Amino acid sequence: MREHSQVTITDLHPADRLPRAGQAAAHSGLDALLISPGADLRYLTGYNALPLERLTCLVLPTDGEPFLVVPELERAAAHASPAGSLGIEITGWAETEDPYALIAARLPRRTACVGVDNHMWAEKTIAFRTALPAVRQVLAGTVLNALRIRKTPAEAEALRRAGAAIDRVHARMGDWLRPGRTEREVGRDIADAIIAEGHVRTDFVIVGSGPHSASPHHELSDRVIRRGDPVVVDIGGTTEDGYCSDSTRNYVLGEPPPAYLRLHEVLLAAQRRQTDAVRPGITAGQLDSVGRDLITEAGFGPHFIHRTGHGIGLESHEEPYITTGSALPLEPGMAFSVEPGIYLPGRYGARIEDIVICTDEGGERLNLTSRELVLLP
Amino acid sequence: MREHSQVTITDLHPADRLPRAGQAAAHSGLDALLISPGADLRYLTGYNALPLERLTCLVLPTDGEPFLVVPELERAAAHASPAGSLGIEITGWAETEDPYALIAARLPRRTACVGVDNHMWAEKTIAFRTALPAVRQVLAGTVLNALRIRKTPAEAEALRRAGAAIDRVHARMGDWLRPGRTEREVGRDIADAIIAEGHVRTDFVIVGSGPHSASPHHELSDRVIRRGDPVVVDIGGTTEDGYCSDSTRNYVLGEPPPAYLRLHEVLLAAQRRQTDAVRPGITAGQLDSVGRDLITEAGFGPHFIHRTGHGIGLESHEEPYITTGSALPLEPGMAFSVEPGIYLPGRYGARIEDIVICTDEGGERLNLTSRELVLLP
Repeated sequence: MREHSQVTITDLHPADRLPRAGQAAAHSGLDALLISPGADLRYLTGYNALPLERLTCLVLPTDGEPFLVVPELERAAAHASPAGSLGIEITGWAETEDPYALIAARLPRRTACVGVDNHMWAEKTIAFRTALPAVRQVLAGTVLNALRIRKTPAEAEALRRAGAAIDRVHARMGDWLRPGRTEREVGRDIADAIIAEGHVRTDFVIVGSGPHSASPHHELSDRVIRRGDPVVVDIGGTTEDGYCSDSTRNYVLGEPPPAYLRLHEVLLAAQRRQTDAVRPGITAGQLDSVGRDLITEAGFGPHFIHRTGHGIGLESHEEPYITTGSALPLEPGMAFSVEPGIYLPGRYGARIEDIVICTDEGGERLNLTSRELVLLP
Repeated sequence: MREHSQVTITDLHPADRLPRAGQAAAHSGLDALLISPGADLRYLTGYNALPLERLTCLVLPTDGEPFLVVPELERAAAHASPAGSLGIEITGWAETEDPYALIAARLPRRTACVGVDNHMWAEKTIAFRTALPAVRQVLAGTVLNALRIRKTPAEAEALRRAGAAIDRVHARMGDWLRPGRTEREVGRDIADAIIAEGHVRTDFVIVGSGPHSASPHHELSDRVIRRGDPVVVDIGGTTEDGYCSDSTRNYVLGEPPPAYLRLHEVLLAAQRRQTDAVRPGITAGQLDSVGRDLITEAGFGPHFIHRTGHGIGLESHEEPYITTGSALPLEPGMAFSVEPGIYLPGRYGARIEDIVICTDEGGERLNLTSRELVLLP
């Protein structure tokens, strides 16, 4: 089985995704894909189902017609979703039925290996293992990630809209970020603005002030923001059509510590060099090095403690990951964050993040607010 | 291995949960529990971590000390969480390390069977299977659900607060539910109010108007609500401390259809009879029947198409499930929804839902707004 199928999907229309996924699965030697609610199901069918205890599962046999199995009481909702227009069978199961046995009985007898959704819950994979004891389970992502990793023009446009929406939130930061307010108070205002500016869901709001800016995944606290504090603001949401935004900028209230200015300058140079380096053919590992080397030369190497970025699309974090040593060559249509960071524990830190999409010509940044340090009164 | 361990946890203090879970796991013949972000991790450690692609995992060997493995860049956040005060080791893994191999190397060599978190993603369970090829995986829920299913007095109090918060939202429904508005517009106002009235997250907002009320899990649409429409409003959120609310009421704008009044009357009688029947010793299946029989006698049997209810706590849906045929005897501390529904496809439907906690004396309803049909102008 290969890590990635070779299907080209640059211009793939949503309605073609199911057959393409089936072909890719066959190509990888899988007999079926079992897809549970989440980004994969939405990608393949447009059905935005919540993961719940009752089984909802798209079954995509490589040698037969796909069908969607849903709890009887979700059947109307599934039909009303875009999945209802795909011409696939939608089967409801009643409260007293066993949906795993139902699916097992419909798979061909010779089924030897299935691809299970990467995010399928253990209670479901183990129930499938019980219903299909002789069948090997591998990850459906080995097939689907190769499709999802390269965005179509329509998907790129959806990511551009998401990027513009989160940019509008950063542009209003001065309305909320003031000395005397807590991170949590500011965070609530940001969360409201994420919705108001064009998302249906707030995915995360990080307001790391003062020493909290040195903790990359600090979220919100009751710390009162003080004059002179550097503040990292890393925010993102999901838009109506399911695509995600994610952008980080750094703010200082009043006069920044001089050494912090130098840190931000190095970081900005690294992030600029990285976004400028995006082009087809460069590997994810090489792109990671471009910024890491500059930060290391400036003496901050041990303080850049995470990868450069993550892919983005129907999930906030998906392939490709921009990590040290990754041999994955970037291709047109790949969309990912470029977000180097420098963190001095107990003192302060900073991170600058744009979503970038790889095009034939190079990288297109989807976040266009200034990357310079923003000085607020 | 038994379905449920026999540990009594009625007065369990949060700090005692880890050792109790370890004892219960040992009792069930497991060598370790592997707990990923979600309700189980929050229950055991207080750490409210998001499920992400990087592995965060609480390892609870039955013959050794528990330890928490987190991505290096989450280590500060993990330490700052309540997990930081439990006196357990918190180990960070660097971007270039393999956390599965790291955990495998630390488990005793004789490890034969581990309990994996019920919600652990397939990409994690399969990575653990690769790192521990000879180790059988069963569900950690077979051990943990027996603890989580019986709420302590403090947990019951948290559920009461959540219930009161969602009641305040239902009490304001007349502010938003008016002819001429769409379900989506009303839904947005409700979502805002769920936060404003004491939740940190809106979990779901169902506004099913007119024929949409006949689809149990319809969410929101652009349908304009009209005079005379029955409207099912089923809403819930999560409070700061992680506990969930969930309550359903039925509204009519103006004059209801006469046959609908009869339907709601039957439904209310069934729901009343069910909430009155809650007491220790009655089985979940018997409780389900109490309402189902009444609805069947009234001729609506085929239109009550779902189970009576689901447990609630740190998750909106958890054990116990109140389903036909369940032999589970209710016990003091169990908290669950009682939500019979009657749905006439293409016409209308209704559902009445309260969260009920089983006490020594009987059922305590946590939702106290009137269950009668609410007539709005």
